[in-house]
Amino acid sequence: METEYAGELELLGEAECLALLTAHDVGRVAMIVDGQPVIYPVNYVVDKNSIVFRTNWPILAHASLALLAFQIDSVDVGRQSGWSLMVQGMGHDITDALDSASEHLQAVPVSPWVPGPQPRLLRLIPWTISGHRFRGHQA
Amino acid sequence: METEYAGELELLGEAECLALLTAHDVGRVAMIVDGQPVIYPVNYVVDKNSIVFRTNWPILAHASLALLAFQIDSVDVGRQSGWSLMVQGMGHDITDALDSASEHLQAVPVSPWVPGPQPRLLRLIPWTISGHRFRGHQA
Repeated sequence: METEYAGELELLGEAECLALLTAHDVGRVAMIVDGQPVIYPVNYVVDKNSIVFRTNWPILAHASLALLAFQIDSVDVGRQSGWSLMVQGMGHDITDALDSASEHLQAVPVSPWVPGPQPRLLRLIPWTISGHRFRGHQA
Repeated sequence: METEYAGELELLGEAECLALLTAHDVGRVAMIVDGQPVIYPVNYVVDKNSIVFRTNWPILAHASLALLAFQIDSVDVGRQSGWSLMVQGMGHDITDALDSASEHLQAVPVSPWVPGPQPRLLRLIPWTISGHRFRGHQA
């Protein structure tokens, strides 16, 4: 069975990752809930090197002061090409925080498309950012 | 600060989730590595109710006999609408398995676009499938 795949892979630098993050506003956050990974889509805003999104209490319980992964990608199915990047870091509930960085972020507009109460503002402070562009062998 | 968001949310049934899974071939898998969630995009195939994708040894160490989340979505940014679904279950390395179900899945063509060695075939057996359609208030 063939297990080596042809194609092209190019690592993205941190600056390019940050530019892609800033240019988009829908991503996916993964957290650990009862020992299992879960993935939720979120509307987000990047401010400097923080990723900010709104969430509800049940999710917050697993996302604040917890290690998170955040991922965005763009895929062209027809051309079998695209890019993907991942941020890892810790989530901080800054809804009621009084420090100046949090007060600045509290004024950033983040409007989820999913209806319902999302009273908590979560800040993901990245520790690592990595990404790559890829192109399949049929491209 | 406004924290209740308008819009529409419709839960997807399991049959609709399976139909969407079958109709797509690029998703994202989350696993836990050293206590941290990570998210990787993968090319996948659905066969009956198994999700099958290829992977490499480093990832396999965290994905086989481990709890995984698998997610796909489709978002229309302009209309602020889309859908998202998540599968949770356990990953099984079936590369060398001799049971009839695994032998059947070993013949299913799964071709990653990302180049390089991906010698292991992973089967995700779903325990739960859930999803929703959403539409933002500006749609």
